[in-house]
Amino acid sequence: MIIISILIFSNMSMLFAEDGSKLWLRAKTDAHAQVIANSQSPTIDIAIKELQSQWKGAPVQLNIVKDKTTNALGTDGFIISGDNSKQIVINASAEQGLLYGSYHLLRLQECNAIPQHFNISESPSYSIRILNHWDGFGYTGGMMSNSFWKPELLPDNVPEFYTQYARANASIGINATVLNIVPGSPELLTATWLEKIKVIADALRPYHVKVYLAPNFATPKLLGELSTADPLNKDVQKWWKDKVDEIYKYVPDFGGFLMKANSEGSSGPLDYGRTHLDGANMMADALAHHNGVLMWRAFVYDPNEVDRAKQASLEFLPNDGKFRPNVIIQVKNGPIDFQPREPISPLFGAMQKTPVMIEYEIIQEYLGASNHIAYLGTTFEECLDTDTYARGIGSTVAKTTDGTLFGHKLTAISGVANIAANAPNWCGYVFCQANWYVFGRLGWNNKLSAEIIAEEWVRQTFTNDETFVWTITDLMMRSREAEVDFMMPLGLHHLFACGHHYGPEPWCDEHEPGWRADWKPSYYHRADEQGLGYDRTETGSNAVSQYFTPLRETYGNIATCDERFILWFHHVPWTYKMKNGRTLWDELCYHYDHGVQEVRDFQKIWDRMEKYVDAERFTHVKNKLCIQASDAVWWRDACVLYFQQFAKMPIPYDLERPNVTLQQIMNKKINFSEMFSN
Amino acid sequence: MIIISILIFSNMSMLFAEDGSKLWLRAKTDAHAQVIANSQSPTIDIAIKELQSQWKGAPVQLNIVKDKTTNALGTDGFIISGDNSKQIVINASAEQGLLYGSYHLLRLQECNAIPQHFNISESPSYSIRILNHWDGFGYTGGMMSNSFWKPELLPDNVPEFYTQYARANASIGINATVLNIVPGSPELLTATWLEKIKVIADALRPYHVKVYLAPNFATPKLLGELSTADPLNKDVQKWWKDKVDEIYKYVPDFGGFLMKANSEGSSGPLDYGRTHLDGANMMADALAHHNGVLMWRAFVYDPNEVDRAKQASLEFLPNDGKFRPNVIIQVKNGPIDFQPREPISPLFGAMQKTPVMIEYEIIQEYLGASNHIAYLGTTFEECLDTDTYARGIGSTVAKTTDGTLFGHKLTAISGVANIAANAPNWCGYVFCQANWYVFGRLGWNNKLSAEIIAEEWVRQTFTNDETFVWTITDLMMRSREAEVDFMMPLGLHHLFACGHHYGPEPWCDEHEPGWRADWKPSYYHRADEQGLGYDRTETGSNAVSQYFTPLRETYGNIATCDERFILWFHHVPWTYKMKNGRTLWDELCYHYDHGVQEVRDFQKIWDRMEKYVDAERFTHVKNKLCIQASDAVWWRDACVLYFQQFAKMPIPYDLERPNVTLQQIMNKKINFSEMFSN
Repeated sequence: MIIISILIFSNMSMLFAEDGSKLWLRAKTDAHAQVIANSQSPTIDIAIKELQSQWKGAPVQLNIVKDKTTNALGTDGFIISGDNSKQIVINASAEQGLLYGSYHLLRLQECNAIPQHFNISESPSYSIRILNHWDGFGYTGGMMSNSFWKPELLPDNVPEFYTQYARANASIGINATVLNIVPGSPELLTATWLEKIKVIADALRPYHVKVYLAPNFATPKLLGELSTADPLNKDVQKWWKDKVDEIYKYVPDFGGFLMKANSEGSSGPLDYGRTHLDGANMMADALAHHNGVLMWRAFVYDPNEVDRAKQASLEFLPNDGKFRPNVIIQVKNGPIDFQPREPISPLFGAMQKTPVMIEYEIIQEYLGASNHIAYLGTTFEECLDTDTYARGIGSTVAKTTDGTLFGHKLTAISGVANIAANAPNWCGYVFCQANWYVFGRLGWNNKLSAEIIAEEWVRQTFTNDETFVWTITDLMMRSREAEVDFMMPLGLHHLFACGHHYGPEPWCDEHEPGWRADWKPSYYHRADEQGLGYDRTETGSNAVSQYFTPLRETYGNIATCDERFILWFHHVPWTYKMKNGRTLWDELCYHYDHGVQEVRDFQKIWDRMEKYVDAERFTHVKNKLCIQASDAVWWRDACVLYFQQFAKMPIPYDLERPNVTLQQIMNKKINFSEMFSN
Repeated sequence: MIIISILIFSNMSMLFAEDGSKLWLRAKTDAHAQVIANSQSPTIDIAIKELQSQWKGAPVQLNIVKDKTTNALGTDGFIISGDNSKQIVINASAEQGLLYGSYHLLRLQECNAIPQHFNISESPSYSIRILNHWDGFGYTGGMMSNSFWKPELLPDNVPEFYTQYARANASIGINATVLNIVPGSPELLTATWLEKIKVIADALRPYHVKVYLAPNFATPKLLGELSTADPLNKDVQKWWKDKVDEIYKYVPDFGGFLMKANSEGSSGPLDYGRTHLDGANMMADALAHHNGVLMWRAFVYDPNEVDRAKQASLEFLPNDGKFRPNVIIQVKNGPIDFQPREPISPLFGAMQKTPVMIEYEIIQEYLGASNHIAYLGTTFEECLDTDTYARGIGSTVAKTTDGTLFGHKLTAISGVANIAANAPNWCGYVFCQANWYVFGRLGWNNKLSAEIIAEEWVRQTFTNDETFVWTITDLMMRSREAEVDFMMPLGLHHLFACGHHYGPEPWCDEHEPGWRADWKPSYYHRADEQGLGYDRTETGSNAVSQYFTPLRETYGNIATCDERFILWFHHVPWTYKMKNGRTLWDELCYHYDHGVQEVRDFQKIWDRMEKYVDAERFTHVKNKLCIQASDAVWWRDACVLYFQQFAKMPIPYDLERPNVTLQQIMNKKINFSEMFSN
């Protein structure tokens, strides 16, 4: 096995140019710190080397200590004590704790936040902090073949970037990764691919990043090894058990499976007249004796059923408590699909006996892809901090998922990765790196604020100059709200083009045969001459009933509904008076325009920052902001002009008017290859 | 000869829809005024019918009176006297005076400006008030064939719109028209075309609109009738004399010729080693005994000579006084070519012995074509009111051209028409009609203010509602300055694309072989790392020397130069402090941005006017303003980003940033057929 170091990968191709590929890991490596440890292992070696080369403070002692205090923090936790003028000690019950403690120490240093006396004790909010790669790994040929993992090099060569990837994740506490998109190809579980998977797992192991897979539920049938994939069929059960045993031979610490079953056309237990419960438990049984985990996604919906927003709860709640102990239900933060803003999924808090994990989307599928600054720390925080009222006041989503409220030992948090093959700087945009960062940091500590994490990221990624830090932290904190404003304010959702999720097509009402009603914007916005929005109250789909009191009452009453969600839960008359006295129509226009003005302000702010940033990243961001500003205007004009057809009222006269007609916008076609060339 | 009334012409095709084709002539025709006249003629019949159908006041008496008072006003002047509760009298020495007086009375009525007692005496500032049609009339086939005059119908059918065209012109005092583009086709002067011209002249005659032609100087040679067009050749002289005699047989009141000779590649006397003087006098002689007028354009320039801005004066001034009495030199308002803003041509005031006439461009060749509101009243007024100081203070361009200062009897003013074949509402844009209107009104009275005329036009074209009148008059008065700001502020000129005169290409430096240096923007803007602008001071091209004192000194000194022309006359350092304390670079950016904000403000203003305007014209203008706003941003971004490469300074931080890169703008191609589809 050869570690190849030739420049095979664009991330690597500009090692000496400031292309952002160093992420937030920019500490100078010219330190010569004194570091000693009481044990040895590849992981501890890494911790030592990181500190030796970067730590500028007092000598550091790394100790594996299995006492009551360290054991209480679990394998990942650590304690930092000592005095920076004398000696610093990091204690942990396991090697990974020492690694996380070392990265923590370096983070404090890079953020200018080293205390004189250390008194730090940390352990993660979730046991599993996992990336979901929507990656073509396992597929051969076609559009899924451009895999981040470069499987064509495996198993004989190990790309050097695996180490950089593992290091970046470990530095922010991410300890698991699903290598492939849900659902995977049948071939994924064949020996050919398992040999490749072993190589990846071996490369990530020293950094304690565990490998998971997302197989196709029908794999035994699709491979032609069985005639069915019915989960109650004994042969099928045996097939999976044998297959799991085989996997663990390649990867002894294999994490488990993530399943997308009977969702958006994928195969699953329902194909055989069985239930999600049957399918999940069968696979969980196969994993159980290896301590493997089964993550089963609740992302299911059917155009023939009522209100898509209700379907996951309707499908999964009745089986709460019937899943095997090693099953965890993976639930997207909102009831639909990673929209710029959604209320929480009603499964949080409602599913109490079976563990539930949040699925976030780190990649900006619905937020301007790698062209927009949309810091998702605020999105993640908003979800975590929402009170479900499941057990009275204070039953936040954080507490329903981190074991606090329902006592589950199996806890996890997942994020769909924004790390792409051949993307410069890993994510295509420096500011997208912040979303990877904040996912890791919140998975480690779900009580941290999005703002504190943004500040941390800015300091490490750019500079500790206070003017820059506070200016750009503030910009980041406003950025997602700006996206909501210019895309889908007031609870609007899914106004995206039918053919892509980049631009607006609230009018889209066409498509190839088989295009589903619930893939069309009008399913969601329901604009008509009376008003706008989806009636999910008792007189409508009654989705509000899936929330606990008092959420169901406040959401269900137009007078008390949080206006950020008013069009999510209500069909609101155009002339309805909002809390500030404006009509709905005017308020909608003001939000759209405010989003545009915000992005224009970001441009001005960024230009002022020129002296604090290297020329390359300055220009990179400046050019991306051009695109974002242009997209913001596109969104505003498209949505305002489209909805104006129903509202039949003028845009408030003090707002900038569109400089295009609706017809011109409807004729606009975007060229993706051109758009993402940068 | 049959007057055809079928709908052959798009102007006619929507007689009942509000498409703007009624221009400013919207008086209701349900009046039954008492009108009597002391003479009869087709022209007087028109005056009577106009008043009978539209005049709502006291009975009107029309009198041809040849006394000292009326004779002093010339054939076109009129006196309105009487009392609106009893009887109104219009006296004039000729029938056309009665026609103009009648239109004046109706204009007062439509503008809500009827006095109780009339005491009005009017006569025109210029004898000849002439439109120049840059029209393919005379050409057959190819791109020049789409003629406004529909020559394919002639001589057998007379399009009804001729009458409407003549009426519109007469209503604002225009009394002459050059049917074809300079220079015309050789065929223009053949019998085939003269028969058509006769029909047009006959149709326009009752409205006293005289026909002129713009022949090709080389016609006798190009038709193959002679081997040369040398103006000193006897055969050539005889050919022109015979040709003129022939023309007058068809059109006994033929006006004369407009000549573009040896200009931009056209033929002329220089082709035979002769001078402009030789050519002009030869043709003037041919016209003289029919009292025909020769208008000879001074628009000549050569890329091999110094500064294009100087060339017309260098060529023509030495021959001042040597031209025949029936020659008038036609001089564009500025020294270059109808740019958004130019200083006056130095020929005004300098050419004293030979009459000089202004050539304005009514069509917005360089001002957004029929897509932008750019009310040119302010441009025309600015030129007329500029003091040349030719005979001391008060020697305005108006006085140098209307006979006041140099005593010439032959006076004229011309405007390149913006009336196009198949254009809806004659001009393609309702607001472009105002430029036709203001040209006529200023030609009649060069002391009227642009603002008064705009107000007149708004009242007649839209409504007398005072809110609308003052709001839209104010918008119009700001409109040309907005164009200057977003296109070419501070004296910049000719930043247009090499391939068209619509959009910005300050970078354009290419073209097919033969593309001239003086057709490239860099010839004019001269941007470099030191600064911007064309040094026309004594240390540069010394074009300032062509102006009289004190203009030459104030223009020539950067400290005293009117900042509206500073980049016209000076190469100004980027960091030069302008009068308001800003650097040149900052000031440039502020002007560009202000132009954009102005157009956005026009959009807001227009939207507020919805209740005062019919839906069709409201939408028509609204959509055009979208285009203008979009174009303004395009201009601003293109120019600011282009010049920033030289200035190397940031755009002032409080200004909106471009949302495109320079490269993206440079890649932009416009689709004219799409752009002018509305």
